[in-house]
Amino acid sequence: MPATIVDSAIFGGIFSTDAMRAVWSDENRTGHYLAIEAALARVQARLGIIPEDAATEIVAACDIAKIDMAKLRAQTERIGYPVLGVVSQINALCRDKLGEYCHWGATTQDITDTATVLQIREALALVEQDLAAVSAALASLAERHRDTRMVGRSNLQQAVPLTFGYKMAGLLSAIERHRERLVQMRPRVLVGEFAGAAGTLASIETGAMETQAGLMQELGLGQPVIAWHTIRDNIAEVGAFLGLLGGTLGKLSMDVKLMMQTEVGEVYEPFAHGRGSSSTMPQKRNPISSCYIHAAISVVRQYAAALMDAMVADHERSTGPWEIEWIVLPEAFCLTAGALQQARFVLEGLEVEAARMRANLDMTHGLVVSEAVMMGLGRHIGREYAHDLVYDICREALRLNRPLLDLLCENPEISKHVTRAQLAVWCDPASYLGQAGVMVDRVLAVAMRNDRDSEARMPT
Amino acid sequence: MPATIVDSAIFGGIFSTDAMRAVWSDENRTGHYLAIEAALARVQARLGIIPEDAATEIVAACDIAKIDMAKLRAQTERIGYPVLGVVSQINALCRDKLGEYCHWGATTQDITDTATVLQIREALALVEQDLAAVSAALASLAERHRDTRMVGRSNLQQAVPLTFGYKMAGLLSAIERHRERLVQMRPRVLVGEFAGAAGTLASIETGAMETQAGLMQELGLGQPVIAWHTIRDNIAEVGAFLGLLGGTLGKLSMDVKLMMQTEVGEVYEPFAHGRGSSSTMPQKRNPISSCYIHAAISVVRQYAAALMDAMVADHERSTGPWEIEWIVLPEAFCLTAGALQQARFVLEGLEVEAARMRANLDMTHGLVVSEAVMMGLGRHIGREYAHDLVYDICREALRLNRPLLDLLCENPEISKHVTRAQLAVWCDPASYLGQAGVMVDRVLAVAMRNDRDSEARMPT
Amino acid sequence: MPATIVDSAIFGGIFSTDAMRAVWSDENRTGHYLAIEAALARVQARLGIIPEDAATEIVAACDIAKIDMAKLRAQTERIGYPVLGVVSQINALCRDKLGEYCHWGATTQDITDTATVLQIREALALVEQDLAAVSAALASLAERHRDTRMVGRSNLQQAVPLTFGYKMAGLLSAIERHRERLVQMRPRVLVGEFAGAAGTLASIETGAMETQAGLMQELGLGQPVIAWHTIRDNIAEVGAFLGLLGGTLGKLSMDVKLMMQTEVGEVYEPFAHGRGSSSTMPQKRNPISSCYIHAAISVVRQYAAALMDAMVADHERSTGPWEIEWIVLPEAFCLTAGALQQARFVLEGLEVEAARMRANLDMTHGLVVSEAVMMGLGRHIGREYAHDLVYDICREALRLNRPLLDLLCENPEISKHVTRAQLAVWCDPASYLGQAGVMVDRVLAVAMRNDRDSEARMPT
Amino acid sequence: MPATIVDSAIFGGIFSTDAMRAVWSDENRTGHYLAIEAALARVQARLGIIPEDAATEIVAACDIAKIDMAKLRAQTERIGYPVLGVVSQINALCRDKLGEYCHWGATTQDITDTATVLQIREALALVEQDLAAVSAALASLAERHRDTRMVGRSNLQQAVPLTFGYKMAGLLSAIERHRERLVQMRPRVLVGEFAGAAGTLASIETGAMETQAGLMQELGLGQPVIAWHTIRDNIAEVGAFLGLLGGTLGKLSMDVKLMMQTEVGEVYEPFAHGRGSSSTMPQKRNPISSCYIHAAISVVRQYAAALMDAMVADHERSTGPWEIEWIVLPEAFCLTAGALQQARFVLEGLEVEAARMRANLDMTHGLVVSEAVMMGLGRHIGREYAHDLVYDICREALRLNRPLLDLLCENPEISKHVTRAQLAVWCDPASYLGQAGVMVDRVLAVAMRNDRDSEARMPT
Repeated sequence: MPATIVDSAIFGGIFSTDAMRAVWSDENRTGHYLAIEAALARVQARLGIIPEDAATEIVAACDIAKIDMAKLRAQTERIGYPVLGVVSQINALCRDKLGEYCHWGATTQDITDTATVLQIREALALVEQDLAAVSAALASLAERHRDTRMVGRSNLQQAVPLTFGYKMAGLLSAIERHRERLVQMRPRVLVGEFAGAAGTLASIETGAMETQAGLMQELGLGQPVIAWHTIRDNIAEVGAFLGLLGGTLGKLSMDVKLMMQTEVGEVYEPFAHGRGSSSTMPQKRNPISSCYIHAAISVVRQYAAALMDAMVADHERSTGPWEIEWIVLPEAFCLTAGALQQARFVLEGLEVEAARMRANLDMTHGLVVSEAVMMGLGRHIGREYAHDLVYDICREALRLNRPLLDLLCENPEISKHVTRAQLAVWCDPASYLGQAGVMVDRVLAVAMRNDRDSEARMPT
Repeated sequence: MPATIVDSAIFGGIFSTDAMRAVWSDENRTGHYLAIEAALARVQARLGIIPEDAATEIVAACDIAKIDMAKLRAQTERIGYPVLGVVSQINALCRDKLGEYCHWGATTQDITDTATVLQIREALALVEQDLAAVSAALASLAERHRDTRMVGRSNLQQAVPLTFGYKMAGLLSAIERHRERLVQMRPRVLVGEFAGAAGTLASIETGAMETQAGLMQELGLGQPVIAWHTIRDNIAEVGAFLGLLGGTLGKLSMDVKLMMQTEVGEVYEPFAHGRGSSSTMPQKRNPISSCYIHAAISVVRQYAAALMDAMVADHERSTGPWEIEWIVLPEAFCLTAGALQQARFVLEGLEVEAARMRANLDMTHGLVVSEAVMMGLGRHIGREYAHDLVYDICREALRLNRPLLDLLCENPEISKHVTRAQLAVWCDPASYLGQAGVMVDRVLAVAMRNDRDSEARMPT
Repeated sequence: MPATIVDSAIFGGIFSTDAMRAVWSDENRTGHYLAIEAALARVQARLGIIPEDAATEIVAACDIAKIDMAKLRAQTERIGYPVLGVVSQINALCRDKLGEYCHWGATTQDITDTATVLQIREALALVEQDLAAVSAALASLAERHRDTRMVGRSNLQQAVPLTFGYKMAGLLSAIERHRERLVQMRPRVLVGEFAGAAGTLASIETGAMETQAGLMQELGLGQPVIAWHTIRDNIAEVGAFLGLLGGTLGKLSMDVKLMMQTEVGEVYEPFAHGRGSSSTMPQKRNPISSCYIHAAISVVRQYAAALMDAMVADHERSTGPWEIEWIVLPEAFCLTAGALQQARFVLEGLEVEAARMRANLDMTHGLVVSEAVMMGLGRHIGREYAHDLVYDICREALRLNRPLLDLLCENPEISKHVTRAQLAVWCDPASYLGQAGVMVDRVLAVAMRNDRDSEARMPT
Repeated sequence: MPATIVDSAIFGGIFSTDAMRAVWSDENRTGHYLAIEAALARVQARLGIIPEDAATEIVAACDIAKIDMAKLRAQTERIGYPVLGVVSQINALCRDKLGEYCHWGATTQDITDTATVLQIREALALVEQDLAAVSAALASLAERHRDTRMVGRSNLQQAVPLTFGYKMAGLLSAIERHRERLVQMRPRVLVGEFAGAAGTLASIETGAMETQAGLMQELGLGQPVIAWHTIRDNIAEVGAFLGLLGGTLGKLSMDVKLMMQTEVGEVYEPFAHGRGSSSTMPQKRNPISSCYIHAAISVVRQYAAALMDAMVADHERSTGPWEIEWIVLPEAFCLTAGALQQARFVLEGLEVEAARMRANLDMTHGLVVSEAVMMGLGRHIGREYAHDLVYDICREALRLNRPLLDLLCENPEISKHVTRAQLAVWCDPASYLGQAGVMVDRVLAVAMRNDRDSEARMPT
């Protein structure tokens, strides 16, 4: 009977994904404990630190199906940590006390931290997949709508024209930087822990560093330069990464929400019958996914701060700060997975209303190109003077609800310098898109390069 | 297969409680939906807004045992909210389409918000019980150890003597203020929501305010002065309250952790065989509960900020901010319940090492009463001058590792004014406890008054 | 050469106010130190603890004009805290070493905490004034626009009609609760500190509690039940209060921003020539004040969390947590003052575009009253069935861009039960305002009661 | 009259540095505005976009000494942003209206963002210098104390021996990763903005991309792939970096505070007469710098979250989120600079009490090497069985306050397998340092490599 929204049978599918929940489940975590203990036994047997048949017994016992989870819960509540309970169960499964060689030289946190890193590896793989999918969806929108005109908005005011593709390319540029961050972060984070009680590996008389190196190789993790039981910048960096990624998804959801407003109507989240419907207002088309993204990422950024708090650890094994990670890390990943899933849903099926975009662009009768007018006039009467003049004419146009072009033509200071034909060109949104297309192409090139690099890193 | 630590089968008992989890479970939430829909039907039948037999049917259908939870999950994922799904299931359970009168005039958020308030009521009752227990345990410690001398510490330096009871009384004073805050907050928070799509109750042609009043009376909640669908200071105040309470528990855990240090050894968390034991260091006595308290409340304060964020809602029904509450509120309560439980465990069984406290008090050979000496000497040679003189002698005593009393006696400026006997009195920690006892009594009196007030509020 | 935005000569007037900055200035803080030292001397002379002429000298020296601030900075950087430096300067100003009786029995934190509380008292008085002004401005808008129709929005979708007065009344209801919270919080917070090195007042042999009581009476503060050097729920509660208040201002700014959108245009921040103007887009009318409110309160809520963090203090005088308050408290108040000032500016001069509100209400050709239609039809064909039917007709109306009324009339299932005349009534936004006016009146009554109570508390 | 602690004349030297404050001062910010406008004019003249003599005039006018700061404040309060005011003042300084060519094609945020990036460049250079100094100080301590034995602590319990050099090396490993992060982050962050009203550069008819490229080259910044007016992952990443760095400094301060405890006394912050002295307790040696570090970085992590919040920007120029950065970014850097300065002070002058470290290591009569005993015995009687046996003997040793060695020898199960001589070796902390030295060397090698890389990047 779960209490959290992430684990709720009702809401869990909305706020997270089964794949990400599986990564952080009791079963998977415990499974990693077992895999690490087994790998440790194999390596230590190979190095002659423990007997071969001990390793054989231990490896056989390290099977999640053989673990009594209810007993493990009781052990954990008594001791405060589950690893000792797992080791004790492994031990009991081995013949001839050979299980006593299990966990040789390790400390509880070695196993827990390394398991966490293995979970992070799985979780980051899921995030990377979703990032690639979000990237592809944004790239596709940016390409398809490279020239779909709409109004750009500043301070929620219509400002100047741009294209919907340009809008998507902006988001895409951030996603590509997140992919780059992920690549740079991985070697710092995917580093195991095996260091003994206070990090010195004193518990292993000979072959200590060899055990550490061998274990990490078995697990496919980097070898730590020194113990990091209380040096947690790696974990906090993961939180910061998720927080930054969340910020970009939040920006996406903000724009979708705003564009879905009844008064704007420029895009819609994919429709499914009943989805986002209200119990009382049948006409509504709610930006449901955007809501969930907004909520999830608003919490994730608080988790990023909490993980920085967890860095303020005492001495060699911290007294409380570490446990902050236990609470926060799974949820930060679960909520991010939920937000990514919703973002994919939105982007892969987004309905783009080009006609409404065009209509909105025209709704101010040309005011959105006042900058074009100002820049054009500036050549003739000075930029700042032109600014003040156009500023006043715009306010007049607003007051009278008349086309800007007409008022410009009527102004003697302006008509003295420029013809109506020229003014009409300046007042046409289509002729004021600047480098929007060029910038879209620049971003798409970056995305393509990242796709290639990402493929090159894949195992064949 | 839960992913969060709160719902984990392994860790859940450590970071939360079954009672609190039950409050925030899918079953309980859905049960409240049903209770509210039933109450609404009863009230509206009484007011003649819906037919009597519709109410009879609806009330009979509002039974958690009759709800298909799997179907509800599917409905929720499609629609984005569960209330419509529940109403639709109720409807299907009623004969002759009488279920169509269910949810009459209500909007999804009316039911959800009111259910949340009912959950908050239950959750606050649990918190209040724990607060009372923590208060009782602290009061008992304060009373028993009113005169148990120990050293007071400032900036983690031994400063001047005080008593362990005084230390507990300080914490108790905060707990009593939290109880007071809870009493003041309740009438603001325990207010239901029933306002229709945009809060105006337009959905009910006649008897709208009467329905609202009647429904709240049925549920034992306050009637809102106006809809609060997007006016969320009440919910955020609950978060702030939990954050403040957490701060006090964090201070408790900090002091326990520090006093349990090997080098200090003044108190110990209750011992149970194996509890807090390390897999590799059998001599350790880990402050396990304090760790868990520290971690839990460090996250709760970030939740408090997230709930303030959720206040920045748009228009009449918000687009994302509301859902922040869905994520945060259950966890804030669950983690607080875990922290309170751990705090009770610590306080109700705390081992107080009076002998070690006394030994620590003496370890600086009198330096901890240098203030007494300074204040005493100040009468003779001026406070500031005395300060500088004693300051220098103290550093000398530290350097030579000699008793302060001896060095004071050897100083001609001092011996000119004061006898060794007088200096010995000033150097005795027992004679420098000031108003510690008086203050303990003052705090205990406040706690007793709050106990009485709390009992007086109880229903007989 | 200030570095912070709050103290910036360029931005300071935007993000804070001179009055609030003055409260937290070095001069005012130091002035309070002096006032407290003077009050302490007076009380202790009266109680016979220090000589009368010492008090006379000390009181005369406690004059900000006599303090060498440059020297104080140097002293502070050397010692780490300014109070000793101030005391030393007072001492030097007194004849015959009588200044040695200054600061008698006090510890640095006694003076600092009490000064902070005096600053909080001044700061809360400013906040209260602004709250009253915001309340008055909201009440005035609620009253004037009690019947100004506009569309209510849910999930940023047009939902059902309401009035602009109703919208303002919702905000007002929260402001009134904040005023109530302030009244309840004050006696907990406006409590001085005078407790000596570890809180026991051992530094004063006789008359300790009398000194404490007398000092607090002199300063008009409550007497603490026990020392609160490391029991900081009072300070953190102030932060939580500001965070909650900020949430409400954030909601206000969100709604103003959204209503000022080019596509919505329902309200405008007060206009001043050039205000909110862009360097390039003369037609824009930027919601400048709303921007500043949004930014300020987004930071304040993180400060609320930081102040909860500061509660996790160690032992009797904390090692770092206390200093969090030094950083955060002044800024939390300064930013809140800035946000309140901007909110007053917005509300006191808000331009309300009733015609545009009405136009927006009509822009969906009746869809915003689909709920009315659904509720009306529900009586005839069942609520849920009506819901589904109207839902489908609404989507059809959207697709065809035709009035809802026409499509309803054309539907045989509907026309069988209801006449066009009846449908026209349901489709008229004016007839679907529900209890909006009643609720406005309820909130206004609360505000009036609070005004009366507030006046009653004022000194005559 | 500054109100913030960062700008306080009394506290500013403690919580920040003059160098960092100078970076974020009004003068420096405005100076960057001028430098950018001048560079823009130069580039556009070169490209033939504006007349040569306009550029000459503008460049001459772009002189901070010619700017009327009081007027700028008034302009800023009226308009809401300072850039237009600066441009208007430049214009007024130019002859023949040539100043109208100033700011050609730029928008307010182009100048502001680029100035912010230039400030970030200066600020990061200061941070980098401090990081190098902290690295050097830690490396020096790690090297000098590579073999200085002390006790390692887990959960604030004495655990097993290690060396002080090892402890410093752990911190150093994190500092080196921060240096690596800084190197990787720079090219993402040191990218200018020049994109016009909505990012499309439509304001420049020909030579738009050439202007952008040329301007960035002039300023030594990267050219953006697309406008980032509302794509703020770069800025938020800076905040996250500072938050992560703060976490490491917080861990340092935590350990220093704990080691400076009266009962521990293993290290001391550098002593200066009066520094950290209490007004009443002359014997104290307060960890003043550690306090300030703790407080500063506790706030910085909240700023990191606030900067992630600022990413949730709307459309092409955000309505509030951007201004969060204005508040937060300067303070995050200023507080970090203060914390780094305090960390340097602590590390460069740290007093290491090797004798006390040794004494503490011995205080449990051998319990800290119980792991060694357990591991040694494990070979004979099984690891887990040995654990339980030693665990019980340790508790007995604690209870009787007798040396572990004696009790071990008295146990028949143990003496059957191992001699007292062997047990004595296991019980000697000196023989249980494991790989501490090896790990120190590994970390030092990383630091040396980073030093070399850093030098290689320096301009010659």
